Amino acid sequence: MNTMLPVTATDMRRASLLQIMHWLAIGRAQPQALSDVYQDAIERLNPVLNAYTDVSVSLIQEQALAADRRRRDGVMGRLDGLPIAIKDNFDVAGVPTRAGMRRRTVVPAHDAHAVARLRASGAVLLGKTNMDEGALGLTTHNPFYGATHNPHRLGYTAGGSSGGAAAAVAAGMAVAAIGSDTLGSIRVPASYCGIYALKPTHGEISARGLVPAARRLDAVGLLARGVDDLTVLLQTLAGYDADDARSRRRRVAFQPPDWEPGNLRTGFLPDLAAVGVERDVADVFNNALSQLTGELGERRPVDFSDWDFARTRRAGLLLMEAEMLNTFADELADEAYPVSPGFRQMVDFAAKKSAADYVAADLVLDAATLKMRRLFAQVDVLVLPTTPQGAFPLDQPAPASQADLCSFASLAGCPAVSIPMGTLPNGMPVGMQLVGARGSDLRLLELAAVCASSLDAEPAYPVEPKA
Amino acid sequence: MNTMLPVTATDMRRASLLQIMHWLAIGRAQPQALSDVYQDAIERLNPVLNAYTDVSVSLIQEQALAADRRRRDGVMGRLDGLPIAIKDNFDVAGVPTRAGMRRRTVVPAHDAHAVARLRASGAVLLGKTNMDEGALGLTTHNPFYGATHNPHRLGYTAGGSSGGAAAAVAAGMAVAAIGSDTLGSIRVPASYCGIYALKPTHGEISARGLVPAARRLDAVGLLARGVDDLTVLLQTLAGYDADDARSRRRRVAFQPPDWEPGNLRTGFLPDLAAVGVERDVADVFNNALSQLTGELGERRPVDFSDWDFARTRRAGLLLMEAEMLNTFADELADEAYPVSPGFRQMVDFAAKKSAADYVAADLVLDAATLKMRRLFAQVDVLVLPTTPQGAFPLDQPAPASQADLCSFASLAGCPAVSIPMGTLPNGMPVGMQLVGARGSDLRLLELAAVCASSLDAEPAYPVEPKA
Repeated sequence: MNTMLPVTATDMRRASLLQIMHWLAIGRAQPQALSDVYQDAIERLNPVLNAYTDVSVSLIQEQALAADRRRRDGVMGRLDGLPIAIKDNFDVAGVPTRAGMRRRTVVPAHDAHAVARLRASGAVLLGKTNMDEGALGLTTHNPFYGATHNPHRLGYTAGGSSGGAAAAVAAGMAVAAIGSDTLGSIRVPASYCGIYALKPTHGEISARGLVPAARRLDAVGLLARGVDDLTVLLQTLAGYDADDARSRRRRVAFQPPDWEPGNLRTGFLPDLAAVGVERDVADVFNNALSQLTGELGERRPVDFSDWDFARTRRAGLLLMEAEMLNTFADELADEAYPVSPGFRQMVDFAAKKSAADYVAADLVLDAATLKMRRLFAQVDVLVLPTTPQGAFPLDQPAPASQADLCSFASLAGCPAVSIPMGTLPNGMPVGMQLVGARGSDLRLLELAAVCASSLDAEPAYPVEPKA
Repeated sequence: MNTMLPVTATDMRRASLLQIMHWLAIGRAQPQALSDVYQDAIERLNPVLNAYTDVSVSLIQEQALAADRRRRDGVMGRLDGLPIAIKDNFDVAGVPTRAGMRRRTVVPAHDAHAVARLRASGAVLLGKTNMDEGALGLTTHNPFYGATHNPHRLGYTAGGSSGGAAAAVAAGMAVAAIGSDTLGSIRVPASYCGIYALKPTHGEISARGLVPAARRLDAVGLLARGVDDLTVLLQTLAGYDADDARSRRRRVAFQPPDWEPGNLRTGFLPDLAAVGVERDVADVFNNALSQLTGELGERRPVDFSDWDFARTRRAGLLLMEAEMLNTFADELADEAYPVSPGFRQMVDFAAKKSAADYVAADLVLDAATLKMRRLFAQVDVLVLPTTPQGAFPLDQPAPASQADLCSFASLAGCPAVSIPMGTLPNGMPVGMQLVGARGSDLRLLELAAVCASSLDAEPAYPVEPKA
């Protein structure tokens, strides 16, 4: 009777969230079988990639069973049965929140707001993913939980701090993931792992239950294998939360406005080398642009010569480090508490900084906000590489510039999307970033979808770990 | 032919801004004559009250002349010809911005945003008013420019830090004034001087060109002799300013929603003594409440026992002090630069505070924001005295609690209106405060207008200085 072929395990790990939603809807896939596929992938690949730090098989099965039951009863949530990964700085009720540190002795009683929304929508939570210690890093080379490997090449960084989440999505160990982006922590790993990411407008998704890294910058971000997946996830997770002091009444329109490519004004950095972009990345970027002549409308050079990368980086980091001193006050007060020398050095640096230094850093963010407001009076979108370089070997020192191109959106609270834009000569992927004015998230996603479709530069998922 | 009597000088100084607008509109008053009356009042009373620190007669006359010209040409602004005072921490092009300090050697080239809006609406800017040193105080007992006296009783404080502005409005030396309110600096002097004040929702009026005191708290506030004057001023000054990083797209509705007193839920502090309110002030407040049985609807006790006044005060002050260290960095680096011992002590205290201390203070503000959000899910408005005490003699030490009752709205960025509610046994006025949820400014003003009309507790303006 049923002439539809069941979806293969590889297809389930290759497809986008939207595609899998469709398969579930028409009965070509079942929640429990889907979860089994992802659980098998985790069991097989996680020992190699180290993307997850905490997976409970029994909890996955329990959730998948419940999804099957809901399906039979015909009462389903928006993301019902979809296996999703959670970065380990979000509270998940009953599971320790480690934030990449050896910190928690108690487990949270409540889900973080974003986790609760996922659960309410029927998603199957697969586990917690690896990250940099305290989210203060961009390599996911964790001193306690080990390094996450880039599935495109073992021994290479997956980026950070949401590296575990990005590797899991790329390697078909999760359909999508939620992470956090303070200074680029969603976009950098998306660029290095060849997947899609959204850092929404600041405050658009509640950060309640996310371990704070720097509240003025912290954004709950999304990782997936397609742009439209990001849109569905944003619409599921966004909204006002009275219990998050930085949550605001909805600013992102539910429907994107009509978009006329002919009328689009796109801002470009005229000299990528001047902002530290490596030659190979610039070549990939320019090649991608040459495929987007119609999509990106009128191109206007924009001037960031007054943007001091070292200064903005230091300002953002100080906000993070000072917040760490509060967030982890109990742990840091205990001399026996294990933190890495690097982490200790950063918080010790911040401990010597004064309240006035903090205000000076905060003023740098004000200036960045104004700079971006002026920019978005001139252009509709800013298009640039997500990272100045691709992934590098884990045994090499991390370049200081990794998140520089992410800083524009970070410091000003603007939304940014990263999409794969091509492959570097060494075979590693690298991302293109689209940045928009606050509240323009859906328009930005719509534009990113058009560009991604024209580029067709995404790697073949699932990315099977390669040495 | 013209049977209308011209308005007397005393009436011009007694009336509300709206009344004077009406007189100007029907020709019973002329801008130049009006300015002359205010200029005469300043010349006569300022030597006694010390409300203004900077008045330029020639500039006033020039502006009044221009207003007369516009009137003849029939091209008038909303506040055309109305004499308004400016607190001396707003930039006025061509006039030094002192902020109560001996600081500026250059004069600003541009008006502050609020000043520019006043000027564009045709207002006549009378001069700059006295304030506490760097806005860091609540008495307007300035070490360089002297103390402003309360017109109700010489030798008594007018409150601060906008004390000069409040005294000017009360004594008929300005129709209205703009000031700043970081931790109560508009509302405290309004309470002590027996006038009306609005601290709008944070970010509602642009703070560009206001010397920063603590950007997360700074609000441009309004002082006048009637509630409806505050509404007109708010509607003239509010709106988005792309050049102020904390300005937001309009959140205050242009029109207040329909207001049903019968449906109103009013929050009250059940034990005023427990929050430090002096007995005499509590008596005046309770007497005022007994006159507002219909206006304030259903009364609900609210619990602030978890609100630590000393802690919130210290948190707010640290934000101010740390900001001072940045705002006045050049001055404070110069050992010969004159600051008062009290000011030096406060910034020295802050100089020893760390970036982590700043974050801890900032977290207190987050908690206050959540507390107030929860409160305004239970009640529509919070009604309480503006200050725990009335004005005190200038030679007595200032109570530390002066702004405690203002802290709820300050820390959470909520709007607050202060209206005169009666007279203390010593003859000094004291104010009632109405606090609402963010964005409820116009509704709050509408309610305040109804209450003020029922109370009829305003002093007889102009308040002639009394010994």
